[in-house]
Amino acid sequence: MASPPGSQCMETTNSPNENTKHNTNIACICKCAKSMPKKLKSKVVKTAIFAKKIGEDDPRRIIHSVKVGIALTLVSSLYYLRPLYDGFGQAGMWAILTVVLVFEFTVGGTLSKSLNRGCATLLAGALGIGAEYLANLCGDKGEPIVLGLMVFILATAATFTRFFPDVKRRYDYGVLIFIITFTLVAVSGFRVSEILELAHQRLSTILIGGATCILISIFVYPVWAGQDLHNLIAANIGKLAVCLEGFGGEFMSFREDEDEEWITRSDEDKSLQAYKSVLNSKTTEETLANLAWWEPCHGQFRFRHPWGLYLKTGALATECAHHFKIIQKYIYSKPQVKSEFIKKIQEPCRIISTESSQALKQLSSAIRNMTYPLPETEDHIKTSRTAAEDLKIILEKPYPPQQDHFQEIVQLLCVASVLVDVVKSVENISVSVNELSQKAGFRQQKPKADKQQQQLLHRGIVQPVNDSDGSDDSFVVIDVCKLAGGQETLAQALEREKLEMRS
Amino acid sequence: MASPPGSQCMETTNSPNENTKHNTNIACICKCAKSMPKKLKSKVVKTAIFAKKIGEDDPRRIIHSVKVGIALTLVSSLYYLRPLYDGFGQAGMWAILTVVLVFEFTVGGTLSKSLNRGCATLLAGALGIGAEYLANLCGDKGEPIVLGLMVFILATAATFTRFFPDVKRRYDYGVLIFIITFTLVAVSGFRVSEILELAHQRLSTILIGGATCILISIFVYPVWAGQDLHNLIAANIGKLAVCLEGFGGEFMSFREDEDEEWITRSDEDKSLQAYKSVLNSKTTEETLANLAWWEPCHGQFRFRHPWGLYLKTGALATECAHHFKIIQKYIYSKPQVKSEFIKKIQEPCRIISTESSQALKQLSSAIRNMTYPLPETEDHIKTSRTAAEDLKIILEKPYPPQQDHFQEIVQLLCVASVLVDVVKSVENISVSVNELSQKAGFRQQKPKADKQQQQLLHRGIVQPVNDSDGSDDSFVVIDVCKLAGGQETLAQALEREKLEMRS
Repeated sequence: MASPPGSQCMETTNSPNENTKHNTNIACICKCAKSMPKKLKSKVVKTAIFAKKIGEDDPRRIIHSVKVGIALTLVSSLYYLRPLYDGFGQAGMWAILTVVLVFEFTVGGTLSKSLNRGCATLLAGALGIGAEYLANLCGDKGEPIVLGLMVFILATAATFTRFFPDVKRRYDYGVLIFIITFTLVAVSGFRVSEILELAHQRLSTILIGGATCILISIFVYPVWAGQDLHNLIAANIGKLAVCLEGFGGEFMSFREDEDEEWITRSDEDKSLQAYKSVLNSKTTEETLANLAWWEPCHGQFRFRHPWGLYLKTGALATECAHHFKIIQKYIYSKPQVKSEFIKKIQEPCRIISTESSQALKQLSSAIRNMTYPLPETEDHIKTSRTAAEDLKIILEKPYPPQQDHFQEIVQLLCVASVLVDVVKSVENISVSVNELSQKAGFRQQKPKADKQQQQLLHRGIVQPVNDSDGSDDSFVVIDVCKLAGGQETLAQALEREKLEMRS
Repeated sequence: MASPPGSQCMETTNSPNENTKHNTNIACICKCAKSMPKKLKSKVVKTAIFAKKIGEDDPRRIIHSVKVGIALTLVSSLYYLRPLYDGFGQAGMWAILTVVLVFEFTVGGTLSKSLNRGCATLLAGALGIGAEYLANLCGDKGEPIVLGLMVFILATAATFTRFFPDVKRRYDYGVLIFIITFTLVAVSGFRVSEILELAHQRLSTILIGGATCILISIFVYPVWAGQDLHNLIAANIGKLAVCLEGFGGEFMSFREDEDEEWITRSDEDKSLQAYKSVLNSKTTEETLANLAWWEPCHGQFRFRHPWGLYLKTGALATECAHHFKIIQKYIYSKPQVKSEFIKKIQEPCRIISTESSQALKQLSSAIRNMTYPLPETEDHIKTSRTAAEDLKIILEKPYPPQQDHFQEIVQLLCVASVLVDVVKSVENISVSVNELSQKAGFRQQKPKADKQQQQLLHRGIVQPVNDSDGSDDSFVVIDVCKLAGGQETLAQALEREKLEMRS
């Protein structure tokens, strides 16, 4: 918390003379009062800058706030426009409550809360009327006791179900509304004879509030939790690819250092850190998957899209990021001496990094574009698997005698050993993405263009684009039909498409 | 979701004969109808067993549910007992709403929501009356427009503040209630002239609801988020100690294997997994710390206890658990051949594991008992630091030539290299726990008893208890004064206390 306004004056109040002390206090208060507006102003400015940053980070936040404002203004008109008010009376209040409590950032969140609220109100209302009827049978004296007992039992049982993980995940809000409605109906029925009339009013206003939220949420700049989850998983795999590529670059630099100057690459260091956000995205992924479960079909996402597979892929990506944590620990301590043995280890390490990175890039873009992974992905994985086998063989052979720089070699060997796990990890991600692309009905990529290009390559007309330059992961989706006019060579077209991809 | 009741009959409906098909369908429906009660019964039984397990896992859940039931029954009596009803009228509803929405599992949660609700209602009520007054000045035609505009602006701005991390963490619920109350007051004031009377009723019922929740939450089997966080951190450090001890045991078994049979220790393997829950406790820790922030002083915890330091210690423990993840990966592949070199590496590894484990145990029990860490903790850390230095020297020396089993040695070296980091990590945890014990005002352990015991040890009266047996971390807190009667020797007392500790 901020320190109190007068705190910096405290020291001066220790003066022995009482009079002086009093004067100092007054002076201090005046000083504090004078500096107050200044401080307030700087605080307001700081908050404004912070608010601007939050808005810029994700402009959908501003849109969401405006959407809530619109929904609330619309619904509160139920209350203050006379013709509507005459229809609903005080029950219009429930529409306002519903809008504020139900309108969430994502469509899934809004749907989840609306449906929970609606169903729970219906169910609890019916039960409440039943309870009221039952209590009525017990006479005037018994009624409060029976009602109290029923409220107690139902509230206790319902609260306990909130500890069930499945209930907690999907129906937590519904249980709360259930308890509230049941209690209100059961208890208020004791007073108000027109309970059905009341229930009708309340339900219709809740319906109006909920429908307003759902409609605005879906049709005005919707934020789909499913789309967010989809993008998050694709981005996470992409981040892993960038990191792994960075590691590959580090291995390359081992080789070429002999002649070159040592370069500090702060930009690349930053890219090597990208995996860290992947380590902590589990909670977000689970929340989004829970919300996405409620969403209807939208864009290429069906209702009951296999969200679980996104979670599985995400978990595998996190597992892979854990390996990166170990690699990053060692990668900076590069061997200073270039023995043959070190070079022998470095080469497969570099291949694994580069090839696995390519595979991850293609998997990431396959998810992003909702297409099947390219057949080349499998090739990249195979190449890195072969390199991993080579590494294993080197690790199993006896160590060449009388080597210096033992510690550096040990660290390189540790990295090598982890890289073997990375290959396995990337394979698992690939299997999971393939399963996802089947179950989620991703598009097949045009095999025709592929074949045609393959033939051109085989006939030696075109120089194949080097896979390991690490910047292009989608050259095979080039529309070869375009070339039929013969106005540019395939090589030129490839170059052009590559430039377009980059821009 | 469960498969639909008739799904297992689907295959039989492929019969070519229509009539047979029809008959089969009927038979199938009958069969399904017959099996329904059985299935329902098995589902109910399963749910009951699951509920029992959830209750047994943490009996406080059952108590919490009963507490909510009691609070709700008490508050709903406002509504259905006539004298009370006459006082509050329909406003009693707000007490019910308050109880259900505000009563949380922990005291901190309940306080946070109650205070948020109370303050937000007051503030928004005042602002709402102001808005209503302002709108009144604009005449009959202007009023709805001005009110609508104010509701829109306030709802939009308030919703946007919910994206501020600080607001989200502590005042999210307050902002919601603020929007609801402001809208209701501003809009309903248009109709109801006795707005102050209404506000008074509503505030007093919310107060009654909130007070009921807070009192029951604090005085009937309270669940303190602070105490939970405290226990969680102590338990997590304890788990790390157990794991590290297990690793030490593995290194020991390297040494002694030469003569002994290979033993599969599934129990120990389980203990080696204990660190995994530490990896994922970050979210829980943060939630608990946020809730603990609201709690008043209780037991040895002050208001404004340094909860941030618990989070810091927890983060360091997680960091340490990450190292364990790497160690565990390698620890099972034990070298089969016992060369002098391997033994040279294994010994410091074993020392680090055992000593650091002892240090962690003492730190964990220091937190648990809210005392300063024992002075021995520092000794354990020093010993393991020395062992780490030894390891580093071994790693820096050139590797002895012509060794076989290169791969196994590499893995051992990787473990060794990680263990050096573990030592650093344990040191950090120790520093953090020391800071915590100072800031949180932990008790100093009786130095007198220590000294007396030291003298006894020096005079050779007592055999010192071996620290590395790994089962006793608190023998120095024994109350030596008890021995004054001379009815048992110190050694006997130590043994007795040890047994008591274990039971």
